[in-house]
Amino acid sequence: MKASALRSANLFQDALPPETGERVETLLRRGPLHVERIISSDRPDSTLYDQPQDEWVALLQGTATLWVDGTEIPLQTGDTLFLPAHTPHRVLRTSADPACVWLAVHLHPIKDTDAPA
Amino acid sequence: MKASALRSANLFQDALPPETGERVETLLRRGPLHVERIISSDRPDSTLYDQPQDEWVALLQGTATLWVDGTEIPLQTGDTLFLPAHTPHRVLRTSADPACVWLAVHLHPIKDTDAPA
Repeated sequence: MKASALRSANLFQDALPPETGERVETLLRRGPLHVERIISSDRPDSTLYDQPQDEWVALLQGTATLWVDGTEIPLQTGDTLFLPAHTPHRVLRTSADPACVWLAVHLHPIKDTDAPA
Repeated sequence: MKASALRSANLFQDALPPETGERVETLLRRGPLHVERIISSDRPDSTLYDQPQDEWVALLQGTATLWVDGTEIPLQTGDTLFLPAHTPHRVLRTSADPACVWLAVHLHPIKDTDAPA
């Protein structure tokens, strides 16, 4: 097994934010599990997310405020949040310096093809 | 929905390392997905891991060296690694100051009960 095949991206390197909105990078896709790094600008768009998959999110850098199903949730560096499938949420505010770096772990609905035969 | 029900542990707070080995804290269990925070002492034990589940791991703080199936892999803060099920691995070295803080995302084998009926 080659070490180079195992190691993937560094979470904190090359984390230049986009001008507006956010940049999503896939770190891992394995069956129902998708892991992403998300870099936010300090001008988040107002997208309302309502996803079919569960999402566990960690704010690795910066500070932010999310709107989650009617409640504003301030987040500090290191805070984590579990958003069950179909929990409506949007990003309200994201810090400029440092930019927000998120780790998002998505668990998609299990398909028959994910289970053993 | 209560904000308090959604927010979970902060990844960087209360991260005092144990005297030896490591301390594992479960952050989320959702079907086949288990998310853990692991705090290492600077005296790792020599446990050889050979797990039935896939593991994606991120070193959030500190520096470390893992042994993965015959290869030594040095890790800096922010480095990530995917360890497919049954990849033999162990922890060789972990920094003392700061202590190593890991995020481990385990994807266990899908069971029939995880899939829709």
